[in-house]
Amino acid sequence: MPKIEVVERILSANDQLAAENRVRLDAAGVVAINIMASPGAGKTSLILQTIEALRGRLRVGVIEGDIASSVDADKVAQAGVPVVQINTGGQCHLDAPMVARGLDALPLADMDVVFVENVGNLVCPSGFQLGQRWDVVVNSVPEGDDKPLKYPGIFTEADVVLINKIDLQPYLDYDEAAFRQAVRALNADAPIFSMSCKTGTGLAEWTDWVVAVVEKGQDV
Amino acid sequence: MPKIEVVERILSANDQLAAENRVRLDAAGVVAINIMASPGAGKTSLILQTIEALRGRLRVGVIEGDIASSVDADKVAQAGVPVVQINTGGQCHLDAPMVARGLDALPLADMDVVFVENVGNLVCPSGFQLGQRWDVVVNSVPEGDDKPLKYPGIFTEADVVLINKIDLQPYLDYDEAAFRQAVRALNADAPIFSMSCKTGTGLAEWTDWVVAVVEKGQDV
Repeated sequence: MPKIEVVERILSANDQLAAENRVRLDAAGVVAINIMASPGAGKTSLILQTIEALRGRLRVGVIEGDIASSVDADKVAQAGVPVVQINTGGQCHLDAPMVARGLDALPLADMDVVFVENVGNLVCPSGFQLGQRWDVVVNSVPEGDDKPLKYPGIFTEADVVLINKIDLQPYLDYDEAAFRQAVRALNADAPIFSMSCKTGTGLAEWTDWVVAVVEKGQDV
Repeated sequence: MPKIEVVERILSANDQLAAENRVRLDAAGVVAINIMASPGAGKTSLILQTIEALRGRLRVGVIEGDIASSVDADKVAQAGVPVVQINTGGQCHLDAPMVARGLDALPLADMDVVFVENVGNLVCPSGFQLGQRWDVVVNSVPEGDDKPLKYPGIFTEADVVLINKIDLQPYLDYDEAAFRQAVRALNADAPIFSMSCKTGTGLAEWTDWVVAVVEKGQDV
């Protein structure tokens, strides 16, 4: 079965480089947090708001992953933190070699945490290890509360689940209790934080979590 | 270079079966329309509203593609049209073999048009032919106006681009002119229709387009 063999070889090469990325991050004392979501769920807004909230508490760096463009990295650069844009050139997810090149370009010695914004996609990114310590999945209210039913893999593997754009709740039929229940059916442990990156509501719970996992290491 | 050979073989097997699907659809006088979008952009709502608008004008069937669950097919079934749910079981896009099995289960002789709701994903679905005559990409206002810059491939290949959820425009910073300009930079011809599947605003332009392409064949 040559097809399956090839796929296994690609995955294990990626996993090996992901492990090397992790060793390198650990040695530098940098925690990598992989942010995954649908296109337009608010990953970049989350990162921008988190940068502001953590200013003076943690030193942040960012790796921005997109198929094309540097729209997101340009926004992050304006916030004055080290940022690298990776264009996957069509590939539907980041992989460990891309993140390794991103790390090459960042001042790891001057960072405590690196947020890795994955390509907007609720399927493919979850299959590829990058060297991250934590996986975060962002759902947004306009997307609907049924996403865990349709994309179970990514919610099952998440360490944290965020609900963004709660400011739009009054205009939409989003049942937050149903969403939380659907996540819980797949994932017994991940904390679920709801927030609006536009208004700042609920952001502190998330940023406190980030500070805790970065400061206390892996024992949170 | 064995990896590239394998990829080419997979693609051409898919393309061949897509061509067979197309022959079968043409023989039955059924036009297949492939609906692609991010998760939660409103593909199912679009199909439900379109079914209502076309009632008495065209006979509709639906193929629902999702990683998991039958949430969408259950909704479509309530509208009283033939529907098949395909669960890809992790695969990030529909492919021609899946659609062939979907067509097996539909009463093609009693249909004029079949809407194929692809897996929510702005990257992978565009690479796989299914046998469709038309490709539709749905963008929704909450996703933001920059999606053509970040996901150029799918917008380049689209035959029609829809902007959904315009009822949320007052609460968001979505620049429709910027979105239309970004699509136009990639795609000179595709009509762009803006609408709200929640309120019904703007839907007629789209459904008139569907009726025209189904009734007049490929010369629209």
